[in-house]
Amino acid sequence: MFNKEVYVRRRKVLIDKMSETAPEGNRGIVLFLGNAEAPAQYKDNCYNFRQDSSWLYFFGIDRPLYAAVIDLDDGKETVFSDDVEIDDIIWMGPQEAVRTIAESVGVGASAPYNAAADVISSARRSGRPVHFLPPSRYYNTIKLASLTGCTLDAVSEVGPVSSGGGMHASLELVKAVISMRIVKEDCEIEEIDKAGAIGQEMHNMARNNVKPGVMEQEVVGKMEGVTLGKGWGVSFPTILSQHGETLHNHLHDKLIEPGNLMVIDAGAENNMHYASDFTRTLPTGGKFTKKQREIYSIVYDCNEYAFSLIKPGVSYRYVHLSVAKKMLEELRALDIVRGNLDNMVEAGVAGLFMPHGLGHNMGLDVHDMEDLGEDLVGYDPDQKRSSQLGLGSLRMARKLVPGNVITDEPGIYFIPALINKWKAEKADKGYVNYHRLESYYNFGGIRLEDDVLVTPDGARRTGPNRLPITPDDVEAAMSGE
Amino acid sequence: MFNKEVYVRRRKVLIDKMSETAPEGNRGIVLFLGNAEAPAQYKDNCYNFRQDSSWLYFFGIDRPLYAAVIDLDDGKETVFSDDVEIDDIIWMGPQEAVRTIAESVGVGASAPYNAAADVISSARRSGRPVHFLPPSRYYNTIKLASLTGCTLDAVSEVGPVSSGGGMHASLELVKAVISMRIVKEDCEIEEIDKAGAIGQEMHNMARNNVKPGVMEQEVVGKMEGVTLGKGWGVSFPTILSQHGETLHNHLHDKLIEPGNLMVIDAGAENNMHYASDFTRTLPTGGKFTKKQREIYSIVYDCNEYAFSLIKPGVSYRYVHLSVAKKMLEELRALDIVRGNLDNMVEAGVAGLFMPHGLGHNMGLDVHDMEDLGEDLVGYDPDQKRSSQLGLGSLRMARKLVPGNVITDEPGIYFIPALINKWKAEKADKGYVNYHRLESYYNFGGIRLEDDVLVTPDGARRTGPNRLPITPDDVEAAMSGE
Repeated sequence: MFNKEVYVRRRKVLIDKMSETAPEGNRGIVLFLGNAEAPAQYKDNCYNFRQDSSWLYFFGIDRPLYAAVIDLDDGKETVFSDDVEIDDIIWMGPQEAVRTIAESVGVGASAPYNAAADVISSARRSGRPVHFLPPSRYYNTIKLASLTGCTLDAVSEVGPVSSGGGMHASLELVKAVISMRIVKEDCEIEEIDKAGAIGQEMHNMARNNVKPGVMEQEVVGKMEGVTLGKGWGVSFPTILSQHGETLHNHLHDKLIEPGNLMVIDAGAENNMHYASDFTRTLPTGGKFTKKQREIYSIVYDCNEYAFSLIKPGVSYRYVHLSVAKKMLEELRALDIVRGNLDNMVEAGVAGLFMPHGLGHNMGLDVHDMEDLGEDLVGYDPDQKRSSQLGLGSLRMARKLVPGNVITDEPGIYFIPALINKWKAEKADKGYVNYHRLESYYNFGGIRLEDDVLVTPDGARRTGPNRLPITPDDVEAAMSGE
Repeated sequence: MFNKEVYVRRRKVLIDKMSETAPEGNRGIVLFLGNAEAPAQYKDNCYNFRQDSSWLYFFGIDRPLYAAVIDLDDGKETVFSDDVEIDDIIWMGPQEAVRTIAESVGVGASAPYNAAADVISSARRSGRPVHFLPPSRYYNTIKLASLTGCTLDAVSEVGPVSSGGGMHASLELVKAVISMRIVKEDCEIEEIDKAGAIGQEMHNMARNNVKPGVMEQEVVGKMEGVTLGKGWGVSFPTILSQHGETLHNHLHDKLIEPGNLMVIDAGAENNMHYASDFTRTLPTGGKFTKKQREIYSIVYDCNEYAFSLIKPGVSYRYVHLSVAKKMLEELRALDIVRGNLDNMVEAGVAGLFMPHGLGHNMGLDVHDMEDLGEDLVGYDPDQKRSSQLGLGSLRMARKLVPGNVITDEPGIYFIPALINKWKAEKADKGYVNYHRLESYYNFGGIRLEDDVLVTPDGARRTGPNRLPITPDDVEAAMSGE
C-alpha cells in the first residue's frame, strides 16, 4: 500500500469533484465495492485474488469482500467488511481487525460487510443520490443489484444520478474517477517503472528461449514464472504467436519453427497492481529475412516517430494519424500501396495493415479504466470516435497532458481474411496494389510496443531499460552477443 | 480432448441413469452450462480460461460460452454456442464452426447460444423436469437464473426435480454425475499421472530453490512457471509457508530464514485439466533439527500407514481414524498426549494436531466435484459427517472402490490460537500434556501428501516418481546429492 495520506488526499479530491455535481444538502453517497475471490474450478478454489482497480486507487486495501461508503454531505467515510473468526485463524493465521485495516488507509469508521445494505437503502428511502461505478465482475453485478435495488442489467448502465431517480451506475462518479486516474501521480509512475522492469525481464526470458523446436507454451511458462516470482502476475494473458497476423492468440500449442516471425505481447502486473505492456517481434531462427527486415523497419520507424510526437497539448488521435501516414509512405515505397498520402490516410487505408489503434492508457489496468467506458476514458468531450477500421479501435485519442501513461504500439499485419474482404468490397478505394500484396499472404505480422509517460517537456519510456528493438540489436541479443 | 467415443459413452450412461429417475414419457431435459471467461481487471482482460469440470467430462469442449441440452425422452443432444464473425477472425484467426466442434464430441445438433433459452422455456411450459447442476461461477449463476426462470439463490439450491415443480438445481443429476466422475476411467488415470509428473517437477523446482535469503514469492514463481510451461497452471493456489501451522497461507512476502519448516502444498493442472496435489515439508536450512525430525517422522509414518490401508472395501473414514490412532500413539511416546489410544481417538484429540481430514477425491477438480456438494461426493448414504474438529473436515469418507483417486495427507501442526482455545475450554478432556506442548509453540507444522489410486488389489501412488519423503532423502536431495 501507499502511505495513508495518498488515499486520504485522493478521496478528498473525489469528494470535492462530486460535490460540484449537486446542490449542498442532498449530494448523496458514493458506494465503492471491492472484488470477491473469483472461483476457477469451484467456489473455494480461486484464481489469484485481484482487487478492483478503482477500489485500490481510493482505498488501497488488497483483500476480498470489502465495500465503502462516502457520505458527500457530511464527509463521513465507512469501510464495510467482516472480521475473521477463530476457525479462520486456524486456517489463515492471525488477521488484523477490519477497524485497524480501515485506519491504515485513513478511514475512521468500519462496520460488517452486510451493514452496507442498510446505509444504502436508508439513503434510497430519503431520496438521496447513490453513486457507484459499473461492475467489472459478475459477483459485483449480483452484489450491486442486491445492495442498490437496481436490476442486474441496470447496474452496468451508466447515466446521470445527481438529478435524481437514477437506478443505475453514476456518470458523475465515472467522470470524476477517470479525471483523477488518467493523470498518474509520482508514486504511481514509480510503480509503473517497477512493473516495466518485470515486464522487460519477461521479454528477456522469452528472447533467450525462442528457438526452433521449443514448444510455445514452454516459453510462455518461463515468462509468466518471472512475473509470478516478482509481481502479481501477468497484466493480461500473454500473446505469443508465430502467426502475428492473429492479433490476440492465446493458444500456445505449437512447436517453434524456423523462419517465422514471433510476436510477443506481454507485460507484468507488480505487487502494487500497476501494469506494463511491451511487444517485440522476433525472428524465430535468430535472423530476419530481407523481406521481414523491410516490414520490420517500417514498424520500427513508426514506433520511433510516434514517440517523437508525444508531448503535452498534442492529441493522441493526431499521433495515430501521423503514424498512419508514415506507415503508408513506407508501404508506398515498397509498392504495396499507391497514391496520395493524405488521401490514403483520409480513406483509412492504413487500417488494412494496422486494424488497431496506436495505443491506450495504462495504469492499474493495462487498458486503464476500460470498465468505466472506453470513450469516456479515451476521448475528450469534443472528440468523436471514428468508425474506420483501425482508427475506430483507437482507445486513446485525447489531448495529452503530463502524467498520462500510454502505449506506443504500431503494427503491420497481413491478414488474408481481411485482405480478401477488402478486395471483394473494394474497401481500399483503389489505393492497394493487391498484386504486390499477394506475396505477403504468408508473411504474418509485426508489432513493436513501448510504454510512454507524458512529461512536462515531452515524453519518456517507462521501465528501466528499453528492450532491444532495432533489427540489428534484436539479432545480436538473440545470438547472445 | 479424448476420443469422441469417450464423451458419447459417458452421455449414454448419464441418460440411462437419469432415465431411472422418472417414468417414461416425461423424463425431461438436462441442461449443461459451460463457463464464460472470468474477468480479472475488466471484462475483456480475463484470467486463463478454465472450463467447468462437469462440462469437460461430458462434452470435452474447452471453449467459453457453450451450453448443451440432452432430451431424456427422445435422446436428442444439442450444443449451443455462437459462430465467430469476420471481426473475430481478424483478432483470433480462422475458427472452426460450432457444428464441427459439436460433431468432434459426437453431438449431431447445434444452435446459437441464446437458443438454449427457448428450448428450456418450452420444456418448462410443458411441465417437463429441467435438470441442471448448481453453478460454481457467478456468471453461471446469473445465466442459469435467466435460462431457467429460477431465482439467483435457487439455482444453487439442490433438491429433487423429477417429482415436478423443482425450480432449483437437480439432486438426481448431481447424484448421477458424482457416481460417474468418482470412478476414474483409464484415460483419466493417464492424465492424472501426467498432472502428477508436472506437480512433481514443481516440487523439485521448489526443493532446489528453498534457501535462506530467497524470497518465498520467487520460489512460488519458479514453481508456477513450470506448470504454466507444461500444463494449464496450478490446480489450486500454491501454499508455501514457513508457518505451516497456518494451513492455507497464500501470502509469499517473506524472506526464507534458516531453521524453519517450509510446508509446500502445490499441484499442477495439465492441459486436459486433471489435477495433482502434493505436499512436502522442507527444512529451510537443508537439515532437520532433532525436534523437527521427531515430529516429521510421525507424519511420515502416518502417510505410509494410510497408504498401506488403502484398498477396495475399506472406508476412507476408517483409514482417517486409524491414522489418527497411529499419530496419537507416536505423540504419546513423546509425552505430548497421555491416555488410552482408543479413548483419545473417540474424544477427537487428534483434531488438535491435525484439524483437517486425511484426504479428498481428486480428478478434474483438485477437491473433486466440491461444487456438487461435499457430503454427496464424499459420504456414502449410510455415513454421517462428524462434528469433531479434524474428522468433521474429512472430505472423503466413502468405502473405497477401484478407480477412486484420493489424497493421503496427514499433518501435525502446533497452532497457538487453537491450543489456547482447547486449554481454556478443556476440549482435550485431560488427554493433552500442555506443559510438554508449550515447547512446540514456535514449531510450526508439517504435512506430507501423496496422490493415490485405488486399484483392484490395493493402491498405487500416481505421478511417475514419488517425491523424496524420508528425512534422510529430503536432506540428501536438498544438498544436491
